[in-house]
Amino acid sequence: MANGGGLRMLAEHACFGGVQGFYEHDSGVCRAPMRFSVYRPAQASTRRVPVLYWLAGLTCTEETFMIKAGAQRVAAELGLMLVAPDTSPRVRLPGDDVHGDFGLGAGFYVDATLAPWSKHYHTYSWVTQELPALVAQAFPASGAQGIFGHSMGGHGALVCALRNPDRYRSVSAFAPIAAPSQCPWGQKAFAGYLGDDRAEWAQYDASELAARRGFATPILVDQGTADEFLTVQLLPDRLAEACRASATPLQLNMREGYGHGYWFVQTFVEGHLRHHAALLAA
Amino acid sequence: MANGGGLRMLAEHACFGGVQGFYEHDSGVCRAPMRFSVYRPAQASTRRVPVLYWLAGLTCTEETFMIKAGAQRVAAELGLMLVAPDTSPRVRLPGDDVHGDFGLGAGFYVDATLAPWSKHYHTYSWVTQELPALVAQAFPASGAQGIFGHSMGGHGALVCALRNPDRYRSVSAFAPIAAPSQCPWGQKAFAGYLGDDRAEWAQYDASELAARRGFATPILVDQGTADEFLTVQLLPDRLAEACRASATPLQLNMREGYGHGYWFVQTFVEGHLRHHAALLAA
Repeated sequence: MANGGGLRMLAEHACFGGVQGFYEHDSGVCRAPMRFSVYRPAQASTRRVPVLYWLAGLTCTEETFMIKAGAQRVAAELGLMLVAPDTSPRVRLPGDDVHGDFGLGAGFYVDATLAPWSKHYHTYSWVTQELPALVAQAFPASGAQGIFGHSMGGHGALVCALRNPDRYRSVSAFAPIAAPSQCPWGQKAFAGYLGDDRAEWAQYDASELAARRGFATPILVDQGTADEFLTVQLLPDRLAEACRASATPLQLNMREGYGHGYWFVQTFVEGHLRHHAALLAA
Repeated sequence: MANGGGLRMLAEHACFGGVQGFYEHDSGVCRAPMRFSVYRPAQASTRRVPVLYWLAGLTCTEETFMIKAGAQRVAAELGLMLVAPDTSPRVRLPGDDVHGDFGLGAGFYVDATLAPWSKHYHTYSWVTQELPALVAQAFPASGAQGIFGHSMGGHGALVCALRNPDRYRSVSAFAPIAAPSQCPWGQKAFAGYLGDDRAEWAQYDASELAARRGFATPILVDQGTADEFLTVQLLPDRLAEACRASATPLQLNMREGYGHGYWFVQTFVEGHLRHHAALLAA
């Protein structure tokens, strides 16, 4: 790891022949220290490798995916670097820990425009611009980028990719909040971070973006049928409709009996890594 | 799951085609509610399958291995049931949470003889007798049993197997406390749970047991060379000496650069599951 942009290494561990690391830097766009984790496969010690970003869900941190998903084994085989950002700034704001679905651990990958969140909650710009620039400077990243995520992070991954097709060649999601403008989690977050202007919301709604913009490579989504949030919060049918409208290929796998958590994610993560690796190598 | 012995299901999740469950029962030998987790592979829905027990390390619970080790994928392939007991009773005793290496989360898999621990801390009998009987009653277990574990749980797994070769056909360990009578963790635990009689300690010391009794099948041990506890607490060389003394085959893999935690365990867990599956199928 090169020392770029005030990057601080918090811990590094050998894992599947590579290095599992945890880092912090002083983010300019978030005006706060921001944490993220990086898994570097052994291939990254001799060449630059593609980077696959993981965006985590509500209440998670930069550690969750790396601990729970079992992805390093496959990333080591495929020569993919994994980067998992934290889910919000960790600066205390009034009332930020009253809710599990707003504030701390629930940044929703937007650039907030309403005070007090507008001071620090610029996680859309952090994830899509500042963090990739830092990763490119400090780690052996090739420039090929994919992005995936879970729940709130599935929403984030879809939005980041759909708005930045030049930056991300591949996108997938597990149980994403697929139409946040139409579900309670998304409506609460968008109203709190962005205010009442639905045109602002549309910039962060995967289904609205997919219908308007489409995407060049197939979108892969896995969804458990026993997921308690399926019908009220996640709404994958809206994403399917939107992809049909823009003729974007969507592989939506409904997984019988699976729930919402990492027991589900770990079961299907290998297929997602292979999906990204194939597109990132192309 | 059949309902045997006051078993209470706390949660069940689909995972790699099988079921990841968390359970509690009222233990007679521990006189307390005791928790454990079970991974049942899909094969267990049509036949009885071998059971592989995992004993976890200091501060861990029945969840740790199931969340962090990535073992379910391989267990699903091999048709192994995984059972992970909690690391101590969760009954509050005076001073039990002062230390990370004694009391809560640190039962050391012994039957304590000193008060106040002697009332509840009978985790050796719980792990080797009461829990397997409950598992056999409530889950489709074939009767073939193996055991493995990590750190304090590596100690526990070796002790359980060496003392009960009729109950366990296979044993392995990650970074075990291999000679607890000779290291600070073990000495503190044994003095606190068992008193000053070194003959009592010897019944729970893997190296003393290995030298005296040996074991019929090869013992597999993985140990990281960058493990901070290697030279003071773990002492795998003592186990190697003991196995030589009893002509017990020991495969001791020293893993260059690996540490003590689950980053290390997850990297090598597949080899351990295959080791056990081969011996349990024989």
